[in-house]
Amino acid sequence: MTPLQSYIAGRWIGAQPAQALKSAIDGSTIAHTHAESLDFGEALDHARRVGLPAMMKTDFQQRAAMLKSLAKYLGERKEEMYALSFHTGATRTDGWVDIEGGTGTLFAYASMAKELPKSGNLWHEGPHPGPFIPLGKTGAYAGTHVLVPRGGVAVHINAFNFPVWGLLEKFAPTFLAGMPSIGKPATATSFLTEKLVRLINESGILPEGTLQLVIGGTGDLLDRLGVQDAVTFTGSADTAAKLRVTPNLIKHSIPFNAEADSLNCAILAPDVTPDDEEFDLFVKEVAREMTQKAGQKCTAIRRAIVPAGQIDAVAAKLKERLAKTTVGDPRLETVRMGALASKAQQADVADRVATLRRGAEVVFGGGEGFAPVGEGVGEGAFFQPTLLLARQPQDHAAHDVEAFGPVSTLMPYSGIDEAIALAAKGQGSLAGTLVTQSAEVAAQVIPQLAALHGRLQILDRTGAPEATGHGSALPYLKHGGPGRAGGGEELGGLRAVKHLMQRAALQGSPAMLAAVTGESAA
Amino acid sequence: MTPLQSYIAGRWIGAQPAQALKSAIDGSTIAHTHAESLDFGEALDHARRVGLPAMMKTDFQQRAAMLKSLAKYLGERKEEMYALSFHTGATRTDGWVDIEGGTGTLFAYASMAKELPKSGNLWHEGPHPGPFIPLGKTGAYAGTHVLVPRGGVAVHINAFNFPVWGLLEKFAPTFLAGMPSIGKPATATSFLTEKLVRLINESGILPEGTLQLVIGGTGDLLDRLGVQDAVTFTGSADTAAKLRVTPNLIKHSIPFNAEADSLNCAILAPDVTPDDEEFDLFVKEVAREMTQKAGQKCTAIRRAIVPAGQIDAVAAKLKERLAKTTVGDPRLETVRMGALASKAQQADVADRVATLRRGAEVVFGGGEGFAPVGEGVGEGAFFQPTLLLARQPQDHAAHDVEAFGPVSTLMPYSGIDEAIALAAKGQGSLAGTLVTQSAEVAAQVIPQLAALHGRLQILDRTGAPEATGHGSALPYLKHGGPGRAGGGEELGGLRAVKHLMQRAALQGSPAMLAAVTGESAA
Repeated sequence: MTPLQSYIAGRWIGAQPAQALKSAIDGSTIAHTHAESLDFGEALDHARRVGLPAMMKTDFQQRAAMLKSLAKYLGERKEEMYALSFHTGATRTDGWVDIEGGTGTLFAYASMAKELPKSGNLWHEGPHPGPFIPLGKTGAYAGTHVLVPRGGVAVHINAFNFPVWGLLEKFAPTFLAGMPSIGKPATATSFLTEKLVRLINESGILPEGTLQLVIGGTGDLLDRLGVQDAVTFTGSADTAAKLRVTPNLIKHSIPFNAEADSLNCAILAPDVTPDDEEFDLFVKEVAREMTQKAGQKCTAIRRAIVPAGQIDAVAAKLKERLAKTTVGDPRLETVRMGALASKAQQADVADRVATLRRGAEVVFGGGEGFAPVGEGVGEGAFFQPTLLLARQPQDHAAHDVEAFGPVSTLMPYSGIDEAIALAAKGQGSLAGTLVTQSAEVAAQVIPQLAALHGRLQILDRTGAPEATGHGSALPYLKHGGPGRAGGGEELGGLRAVKHLMQRAALQGSPAMLAAVTGESAA
Repeated sequence: MTPLQSYIAGRWIGAQPAQALKSAIDGSTIAHTHAESLDFGEALDHARRVGLPAMMKTDFQQRAAMLKSLAKYLGERKEEMYALSFHTGATRTDGWVDIEGGTGTLFAYASMAKELPKSGNLWHEGPHPGPFIPLGKTGAYAGTHVLVPRGGVAVHINAFNFPVWGLLEKFAPTFLAGMPSIGKPATATSFLTEKLVRLINESGILPEGTLQLVIGGTGDLLDRLGVQDAVTFTGSADTAAKLRVTPNLIKHSIPFNAEADSLNCAILAPDVTPDDEEFDLFVKEVAREMTQKAGQKCTAIRRAIVPAGQIDAVAAKLKERLAKTTVGDPRLETVRMGALASKAQQADVADRVATLRRGAEVVFGGGEGFAPVGEGVGEGAFFQPTLLLARQPQDHAAHDVEAFGPVSTLMPYSGIDEAIALAAKGQGSLAGTLVTQSAEVAAQVIPQLAALHGRLQILDRTGAPEATGHGSALPYLKHGGPGRAGGGEELGGLRAVKHLMQRAALQGSPAMLAAVTGESAA
């Protein structure tokens, strides 16, 4: 059986199987990593000598057009990806977020080209109002800002939970920025990312050398990077902290953008009563965040912060809802929640839940009598949705320990300031939700929450019908939060492209600035 | 003799003298650091409990008005600072860059308030075009971006070369961003920064707790910071690399913005002949960058890259110019170049020059027969301007070793691609200059140089009369470069304020977004 292969320097590498990767559904082996070690010097050389020059023969508009073609191509072949996606434990709906969320991100970045230069690879960012800032009294000398391709390579290291979207959301702005990518998916679900890259490759749309794939470890890759390169990372805060201090990255000030899973919260505002639609919206949002992708989202709601007077009502409603959630083989139409990505994750989540249970009641779950539906799922990586309630939430472990699965902890508060203080105990989060019908409450609370969040949702009955959900990162909105969430920024429209280019201030006579930027000197 | 004092938690601390700080002019002791150790927990507590709430009672506009008042107040007392500035080795002109450059930066940031919200402390950054991005088909749910105060404290660690500007250029955007500052100047010239902070304090303009001063080491200050805090650093690349990996900063993803001195270059383009005005502009620019602040600028031209056919002519002209530069007591009107900041710097620069001389000719300098003018300057920290010429520049140490003084190395090139390749050997620079009269050459070369530079100047006869100079960081233009230059961004107009705030994406019904941002929901 041919193992998964890395795509390096224009060829697929790997003939000897190494680590077995198991289906999350039934534990059967569905792929192996390859045993051959990779020459990362060759990979970087290829990106620099083949990928970069090929890319620099295109401009922003041409690359955007390629992203659009690629999105279409992949969309037409999505079923090949869905077939493998199930084995990561994902339901069809979960797979949609990953697969069509991924191609949707390509489409979105392609469409942003309308705000990019019509030709060439220099982006005149300029001041506002533009085009140039006079730096003297006569106008003989002026200044502005430009963005140019960094002339290096981006290494994208991804988590196991979004094998398709994870690579594409990093690749799209990088490609638009004129930078070749080397993608390194998490091993557990790399069989799906390999499929994606095979499809991309077969499409023939991308210039050779602009996307390479690493199956397995990164070896000495980070040690070989130079000042013009960049690294992006999605995964745990611990691994982010470890990789960030790689001496070679520090020595060359190589940008390291981290997006780490965090202890995100949802707050039910004091104005909402059980009779309000917002009460049900809150319950639905928490339940969905617990069960979508089996709770394996870095943005999932881990802490549900509720007025003390409503906590039992919320707990009861959530319990009811979770009890109705069918867990099992994600290929079955009746199933609403699939499996964790691997047995290792299953063991890890169980460990964390044991810690979280100290000082908390189990509202739902706990594993006893839990039996996922489907045939032969006994060896699968299933985990029962588990809702805890910490009645003394001030020092509870839920502010610090993350079970990366279908696990959330309810916390009561008295007064909105306490809710905000509890939220802050997460020490920096990717996403937060405030459910309220009061614009006044939103105006008071959101600015305070914003200091510790990358993205905030205000949920009410008006927005609900079109709400994209607490956990969904969107191409036009920034993804990434402060502190524990890694301190990085991804997506957010063209911001993401800017982060992957080099900004330089430019000074000179207006005629010279015009010659470089393509603006009129007037 | 009372030593210099730290300003911590609303009081001046320090009664016992410790390290003696010497005048760069004659080696006389002009101040001592204090022996008392500081309680950084108290400093942070004061900033959080006193400074931050006081600041949050003001809005962007009020803080901008305070910056303006402060700039005026300091401007009226600038002579008190000039008197001390001489002892850092600075001439009056050098002092102007530091002192009036500093107050000018306050004025500039004050004036940027016209682009900031008219009230409050939430900045609706929005998408373009705004105000909100629809996230569905009916417009019931939309998104945008806001910037809010981080709710933490900024620690600003500065280099010895700009005791006034160095603090003010970091303080101004930080204050505007609503964040209290703790400033830590380099010890050698901290007597001037202490004077600055005394004046600021006497003005009574700033709310208490919004600016504290550390004389001496930072002790455990960085270990005590939290997720909402930030650190900015200006100094050597080595120290930046060391501080950046402070475990507590890594653990909490605390932003660390580094601005490190780099091996900046100036390129004389092939189109310029000795008969062109641009030829003289190049010579003047290199000479000025060598001698201003005695070459102690992180942006100074360290590598002058010249067409091989012109190298001897450039060397001859530069030699002539440097020979006419009177070096000595900076208080004397005839003196054009003062001293290095300290004897330690003098020894360090001499060491580096010894390394740079390997494989290079000495065009000017070298120290023999060098005698600075003035009385009693024998114990001063003077250093003769030293121009080297590396005829085989490919592997010369000048691409890697920086003598932080009046030292530069000439390098010949054949063909503009070689010039660009030599420039790139600096591995990332703060500033670069291209002297040309050809718009075509500028359009070809600048985008390539931009990938490795934070700021670029195109110098020609048209812009020259108003040119602000290769080395001058300006409030409206980005300061900071990639790679060796630290990978950070300071200044650049309101960008600097954004870097010190927290950006959050916001989602919800347009009515809710309007309530938070103050926009109209329509």
